[in-house]
Parts: sequence; structure tokens; C-alpha cells
Amino acid sequence: MPDSFDRIAVLGLGLIGGSIVQALARGGYQVSGYDPDPVEAAAARGTGYTVAASAAEAVADAELIVLAMPLPHLEGALIAIDHAVAPGTVVTDVGTLKEPVLQAVRRRLPGVRFVGGHPLAGTEQSGFLAGDPLLFRDAPWALTLEPDTDLQAWLSLAVLLCDLGAKPVPTTAAEQDAAIARVIGLPHMLAEALALTGLRGGELGLSLAAGSYTSGSRVARTRPELVATWCDGNPAMVSALDDVIAWLSAGRDALAAGSTVLPLAEAGHRARMDWENREFDPVDLPADAETLRQHGREGGWITAVIEKDGPKIGELRLLGMRPVR
Amino acid sequence: MPDSFDRIAVLGLGLIGGSIVQALARGGYQVSGYDPDPVEAAAARGTGYTVAASAAEAVADAELIVLAMPLPHLEGALIAIDHAVAPGTVVTDVGTLKEPVLQAVRRRLPGVRFVGGHPLAGTEQSGFLAGDPLLFRDAPWALTLEPDTDLQAWLSLAVLLCDLGAKPVPTTAAEQDAAIARVIGLPHMLAEALALTGLRGGELGLSLAAGSYTSGSRVARTRPELVATWCDGNPAMVSALDDVIAWLSAGRDALAAGSTVLPLAEAGHRARMDWENREFDPVDLPADAETLRQHGREGGWITAVIEKDGPKIGELRLLGMRPVR
Repeated sequence: MPDSFDRIAVLGLGLIGGSIVQALARGGYQVSGYDPDPVEAAAARGTGYTVAASAAEAVADAELIVLAMPLPHLEGALIAIDHAVAPGTVVTDVGTLKEPVLQAVRRRLPGVRFVGGHPLAGTEQSGFLAGDPLLFRDAPWALTLEPDTDLQAWLSLAVLLCDLGAKPVPTTAAEQDAAIARVIGLPHMLAEALALTGLRGGELGLSLAAGSYTSGSRVARTRPELVATWCDGNPAMVSALDDVIAWLSAGRDALAAGSTVLPLAEAGHRARMDWENREFDPVDLPADAETLRQHGREGGWITAVIEKDGPKIGELRLLGMRPVR
Repeated sequence: MPDSFDRIAVLGLGLIGGSIVQALARGGYQVSGYDPDPVEAAAARGTGYTVAASAAEAVADAELIVLAMPLPHLEGALIAIDHAVAPGTVVTDVGTLKEPVLQAVRRRLPGVRFVGGHPLAGTEQSGFLAGDPLLFRDAPWALTLEPDTDLQAWLSLAVLLCDLGAKPVPTTAAEQDAAIARVIGLPHMLAEALALTGLRGGELGLSLAAGSYTSGSRVARTRPELVATWCDGNPAMVSALDDVIAWLSAGRDALAAGSTVLPLAEAGHRARMDWENREFDPVDLPADAETLRQHGREGGWITAVIEKDGPKIGELRLLGMRPVR
């Protein structure tokens, strides 16, 4: 079996980092947190969790380091722990975009074994006290597997995530960022644009706004600087926006010509219902990087890492689920 | 006080019509329903409601007729009841767009006193058995007041709606349709476009889709033919779509130039929070059509119709709420 992690450091104790600390402690892991914000540090310490006095102290003898600070603080955190991290230590993160983190870690901590991570979980709240040890139950969790990623480190992290109840999705940084543009960046941009456009119809429209405006603009509640870090610098956002603008323009032109939006509504309805009604089959996979990446590409995730039966004792296989074709 | 309605006919026993029948019966009104679909008629009859054998029978001695059939069936229903409706009968409807209904009733039933209505309530379900007598509690309900609308009929309907727990919003057909474009038509178009664009990122994106994709595409679950009847033929949809496309194009160009979407995210966030955090003041209004229309235009609604104190016994005033400026 892949190594498990006896000592884990979590840097950043906001909603996600705090939830990871709580989930790990609940799972019996030895975990030490750190946050430069004394409020978050005190919240974690005050509820019984171990909080180090500095980032360097937190990571000093950790076998796994989880980077859970906001993206703009990443570079500074890497500089702060540079001298304290042993070569070969496994490092992961929880950021929405994976390319910027991959590049920063390659530049600042070239000796570690890095595996990018992105849990698809969250609430509209923030801070350690909003954390929830069950936040990651059944949540997809992108886990990057580049050509130079250490497969053993990847498998160890996959085991850990399954233990937290999450669904590890094997992918590359570039592929996850392209996918995320369409299902995270884009819905946020549409919510912002809807909130604004609804407003321009005046007070009457706002008093008549009902369920569709409410749910369509819901994520415009998210802090704007977070939305910007999820969109800015992601090249796939431009083509995702081009696509959505093309659909909307086709609808606009149909209406202007006295025609109907029915074809768009039918296609959109079918897309949504197909997505909701997907069914999944169990699948058994070898511990092979390209096989795993292809599994993620096809919409699959991992449910367990187990030892293979038969003559080759110690060889691993992975259990997973994938969409029925 | 305005007349109350002793006998009410509701034509169309789907989700909205069925909920109106149930709410009226619960409020002690004498109500008779009709639906050409034997399934809906049987559902209503089987749960103890009065269902007529034909539309003409339902409306024969009604003082108020509620048209609650889908828009494509409206014209046929008006022809079916034409000979059975007494001149001066009050007629209302529940459709999303008010201009097409106003025009059809003017053409087909010129002798009635028509007041267009649009309850901003609903669920993703349909049919009589999905109905709920409390569906309209606290729901805005647009109630059209054209220059030629009978003010007494309008006031009688406002009293009825307040009695059902709804919030009557005085407006005109044209103004409500323009407002609705931005807060109903547009959110549906955006949901359809998001559902489709998310799909084009492949299976990986769909397995990583989380809360923002789910809530953003939620109303793409609506039956496509309904979405088309809410958008098609509404001239305000074109400028609403132009606005949203302009916002999205600005975001797209910022990203393509290596800049940030932060200004859009900040403006959208502010718009959503301002909408959520609106506060309202009570207001006292005369029973004057232009005053009422202006009240609706400014985001207000009616909470009660009462008799004025003082020397002019029998004169009415309206209590309402309006946004704090």
C-alpha cells in the first residue's frame, strides 16, 4: 500500500484549510495548522486544534504539507517555508486554478513531491469557524498527475482523500483549469452579469424578481476578489465566454427576427437533464498514470486504492466509478 | 369597499390554476374549476373541489374568471367562453407576459373588465396535485392597470390577492413585460447557455461541476416550451440580452488582454447585495391609477385596501410597502 502520512501540516486555516484540519483530526491524523491571521489561529487553537507559531514550525517534520492560503499569498508562504521543508516531502494545495500553483511550487520548492489538489466544496461563508469536517463528503477533488508527478505521492494522497469521503479525480493542471473555466469561472461571470443586468431594468423588475433571478445570481454573493482569482490568467476562460456569448447572440438574433428561442431552450434543457441523470459504473484500474488521467478525462473518479490479489503481491489497483456510456 | 367576488371560475387546473383553486377554497370563496385535460379535472374533483363539465359551464354565473391555461391555449379558451360571459364580468389571468393576453382579451371579449395578473410563484413541478394553497404567500403578483382598466375591478382583485397572502404590484402590461425580460426571461436564457457551454468542456468538467454550475443551470430544468413562451415576442428581451452580452464581452476582452474581471465581479456583487439588502417603508396611497402605477415602478406593492377615515365616507386608500430610498 502507498505510504500514509503520520504528520500533516495545513497552512491557511480559512474555510477550506480549517475544514481539512477538522476532517483530518476527526480521522485520527496528527495535524498541525498555521495561519498568519491571529483571528483564525486563535479560532483553531480555541477549539482544541494544534496551531504552530510559524509556517516553518508547522512544516518542520511534516510528511505532507497542505497549502490552503489564498492564491495571492502563496508565493510568500513558499518563501517562508523554503528552508524548513525536507526534500521529497509531499506537498499539495487546494486552489481553484492548478497551473499557477504548479509553476510557483516548481520555481520555489523544486525538491518536493508536488501534487496539485482542488476540492470542489465550499460554502458562501469563510473562516475557520465556518469549517466543517464533513465538507468533503462526496465532493469531487481534482488531483493533478503530470508526467513528472511522483505516482506514489499521488496514490498516497488519493488514499487520504478517499478516507475523508471525497472523490479524487485524476487530471492534469492544464486539463482541470480548462474544465473549471466552464463550470466555475463561467457560472460566476454569468451570475455577476445577471445581477447587473437585472438591476438596469429598474425597481419594478427587482420587486418582481423571483426564483430564477435568485438562483441565477446567487454566486454573485461570493467575494469579488475570489471570483477574480478563479478567472484571471486562465486561458480557457476566453473560449468558454466566446461559446456562451455565441449561444446568447443566437438567441438574441432569433428574438430580434421574431423567431423563437425554443431550439436553445430545448438544447439547454437536454444538457442539464443529461448531466443530472448520468449513471455510473464501477471500474477497476491499474496504477498507471496515463490510464488514470484518461479515467478522469472520461468523467471518472477513484473510490479506493487496494492491493492486487494474485502472484504479484504489493502491486496496486484502483477502484473507481465512471459514467455509463 | 370594492366588491368582493362571490363566485369565481378558474380555467386551467395546472400548478398555478390548481393552487389558486385550493387557496380560494381555503379562504372560503365559492370556486369552480375547469380543465380540458381529464387527468387534471379528475385530480381536482377527486380531492374534493368543484369541477365544471365545460369552460362555458364554469364561467356561466361567475363574477370573476381566472384564465390559468398555457398561453398557446388562451385564444381557444376565449372563443369557447365568449357566448357564456356576461358583459362587465371581471377577468384576470396568470401568464408571464401581459401584452399578448391583454391584446387577445381586448379582441375576443371586448365587453369584460380585464385586469392582467402574473403571480411570481411556482415550482419546477406541474399539475393540480403539485398545487399548494400557500404557494402565493409573500409572492409578488403583477396586476396591470392600463389607462382603460376599470379601477374598481383592479381594487377588488387587489383585495382578493392580499387575502391570499400575495403582494399585488401595480404596473402596466408593457412595463411588466420589460421588467420580466431581465428577471425571468434572461435568467432562463443564461441557464440554458450555461448548461450547454459546461457540456462542451467534456466529461471532466461535468464531474467537477459544483454548486455554481448547479445553481446557475437550475432553471434549465424548466420545460423548454414554457421558456419559449416567456421569451418569444417580448421586445424587451433583445435589449436585456444586448446588455448581458456587453458585460460578458467586456469580461472576455479583459481576460484576453491579460487583465482582470475584478471590476465586473465587484459591480455584480454590489448589485446582488444591494438587491438582497433592500429595506422597505410602509406607505399610504390614494386609490388613483397613476399614483399606483408610479408606486409599482418604484418597487412598491400593496398590502391592504381600506376605507378612509374622515368626512368622505366610502373613499378608499391603499396601504403598501416601498423600498427605502
